[in-house]
Amino acid sequence: MPAIRYPENPLITPRDVPPSHPDMKIIGAFNAGVARYQGETILVLRVAEQAVADEDTVGVPIYNAERKSVEVHRISRKDPRFDLSDPRAVRHKDTLEPVWLTSMSHLRLARSRDGRHFTVEERPFLAPETPYEAFGMEDPRVTEIDGVFYITYTAVSEYGIAVGLAVTRDFREIQRLGLILPPENKDVVLFPERIGGRYYLLHRPAPKSMGDLDIWLASSLDLETWGRHRRLMGRRPGMWDGARVGGGAVPIRTDKGWLVLYHGANEKNEYAMGACLLDLEDPSKFIARSTEPILKPEAPYELNGFFGGVVFSCGAWVEGGIVHLYYGVSDEAMAGADLSLREALDLVTDKMTV
Amino acid sequence: MPAIRYPENPLITPRDVPPSHPDMKIIGAFNAGVARYQGETILVLRVAEQAVADEDTVGVPIYNAERKSVEVHRISRKDPRFDLSDPRAVRHKDTLEPVWLTSMSHLRLARSRDGRHFTVEERPFLAPETPYEAFGMEDPRVTEIDGVFYITYTAVSEYGIAVGLAVTRDFREIQRLGLILPPENKDVVLFPERIGGRYYLLHRPAPKSMGDLDIWLASSLDLETWGRHRRLMGRRPGMWDGARVGGGAVPIRTDKGWLVLYHGANEKNEYAMGACLLDLEDPSKFIARSTEPILKPEAPYELNGFFGGVVFSCGAWVEGGIVHLYYGVSDEAMAGADLSLREALDLVTDKMTV
Repeated sequence: MPAIRYPENPLITPRDVPPSHPDMKIIGAFNAGVARYQGETILVLRVAEQAVADEDTVGVPIYNAERKSVEVHRISRKDPRFDLSDPRAVRHKDTLEPVWLTSMSHLRLARSRDGRHFTVEERPFLAPETPYEAFGMEDPRVTEIDGVFYITYTAVSEYGIAVGLAVTRDFREIQRLGLILPPENKDVVLFPERIGGRYYLLHRPAPKSMGDLDIWLASSLDLETWGRHRRLMGRRPGMWDGARVGGGAVPIRTDKGWLVLYHGANEKNEYAMGACLLDLEDPSKFIARSTEPILKPEAPYELNGFFGGVVFSCGAWVEGGIVHLYYGVSDEAMAGADLSLREALDLVTDKMTV
Repeated sequence: MPAIRYPENPLITPRDVPPSHPDMKIIGAFNAGVARYQGETILVLRVAEQAVADEDTVGVPIYNAERKSVEVHRISRKDPRFDLSDPRAVRHKDTLEPVWLTSMSHLRLARSRDGRHFTVEERPFLAPETPYEAFGMEDPRVTEIDGVFYITYTAVSEYGIAVGLAVTRDFREIQRLGLILPPENKDVVLFPERIGGRYYLLHRPAPKSMGDLDIWLASSLDLETWGRHRRLMGRRPGMWDGARVGGGAVPIRTDKGWLVLYHGANEKNEYAMGACLLDLEDPSKFIARSTEPILKPEAPYELNGFFGGVVFSCGAWVEGGIVHLYYGVSDEAMAGADLSLREALDLVTDKMTV
């Protein structure tokens, strides 16, 4: 595999992040979007916080939009209605569907001059404020379009898992532009330029009854409203992306097409990153994808952690034929790796569309 | 309850509809959108067809977009992988999620001068043509905006249950405008006019994990792309709409607000129609809804049929303070009822938003 991990990995861990409130404990700083701004590499981190622990109960932090404050609900570990075996969620005993999350995520900036050593800001950049964000804001992707930075993020609440859009020009002020996709959807990545006059994004619906966890494409004239939905690419049963796929980093323009670094998971819930190519002029045309993953969990910090065995990239940037890929590891920390754009393209050989 | 059923009910039954192919049998003509055009009441029917029966197998009709033809797949009634107890679908034995449908629906026009006696057209008006319609096209709603008729419909395929938009000016030519919402979503109803310069619709996402079957609102500048999604209204546990809600007829402008006739089902899967009121200037503002249903299954044709106990309206029109409501009964036939707009408004008293 062509990825060369940074010797400084993990680049950011929960210990590097001050909590947003004294009663909260940072358990994750991961799955960051990436931007380049004024000579700096900026990571828009997903920072997950847990209520301080308790032997008898699990804390469920929920943002109350009316009172404008985070409230911690305590669920007894003996409550027969729930299954607590997944550290990430309180699930229904019977259906195993999640009811609440055991942590709440917000978005936090980290800045670096060399791309390896980051300074994490003291305060959240964007924290839950709307009823759709009551359970948290997750997995941001940052796309620069015409000098403006658009951040797509997962908005989680009792109403479902939806997709929000926010915009910043300077990584100081930030403004919400509403929910751009309704539940259940996540892994939304904007393309960095208009194609044929339209904006494009990748999304990953999670349908209740029929249908798989596939990558879809949509387009827009104004970034706030989306349509012309088309399914792009699905899972490959038996392969590393046999159970689910979803967008990852912002698509990279190459001479062979749009290179999309995406994530997949197999039937054992093992996550890895692969690549696919889409037509430059019409990104609904799938060209090919990598048979093997481009990055899979191998380093200790990728194999062990809050939810081990996960590498999950939300951003990268390209310089002189090298992709600087940043990725969350084990739902806990951030790592980085360089990969040769040419080698990545050479791996994209599977033209079977599913 | 204020609905006065037409003595001619049921107005249209499967026997009134010629099949689209000699090998198919009509099993349903129901859940029709309604338009008024050139002095006629036009119903855009959902027509469901089954492959001609067989003792040992269940037929699954699927449109093959590459070969441009409908193919009938035969599932053995003894196949241990499937549960066939629901007449509408072949379900996974374990999860009971639907895998395929036992019928395929297309859209068919029926015309009437008096609103009671309809002539059903010989041929489909809009039948599956895209991969997203491979399992059928269902539950159309017709909204006239500035003299143009827009039809929203449920597009069902192995990729999920999505929402398509089509447009006609004369109920002869019709053109698709793509999928306006990705899976899983249905019960999409366009408002009949712009509000504050924007188009609006109601939709009903079906999220996989968190979230209920609630009614949401979205808006658009061009009808093809949609955003600013907001949750509008949910189920009321223990009441007639305790399990799910979804849009019904096109919203009706009244002096008290937008009157929305919507459907709900309780925990026993019994369907009924109710009404809610939304602010005229800002339809994201919920005003109230009816405590009791406005129409629930009582007549024999509503209680018995392919899937008994269902009244489900996709359209109505208003004349002199009377709502002419058309509705599908028992997933099989069409019925009609008149209700006084004033009486309907008087029933909308529950201001509890959920």
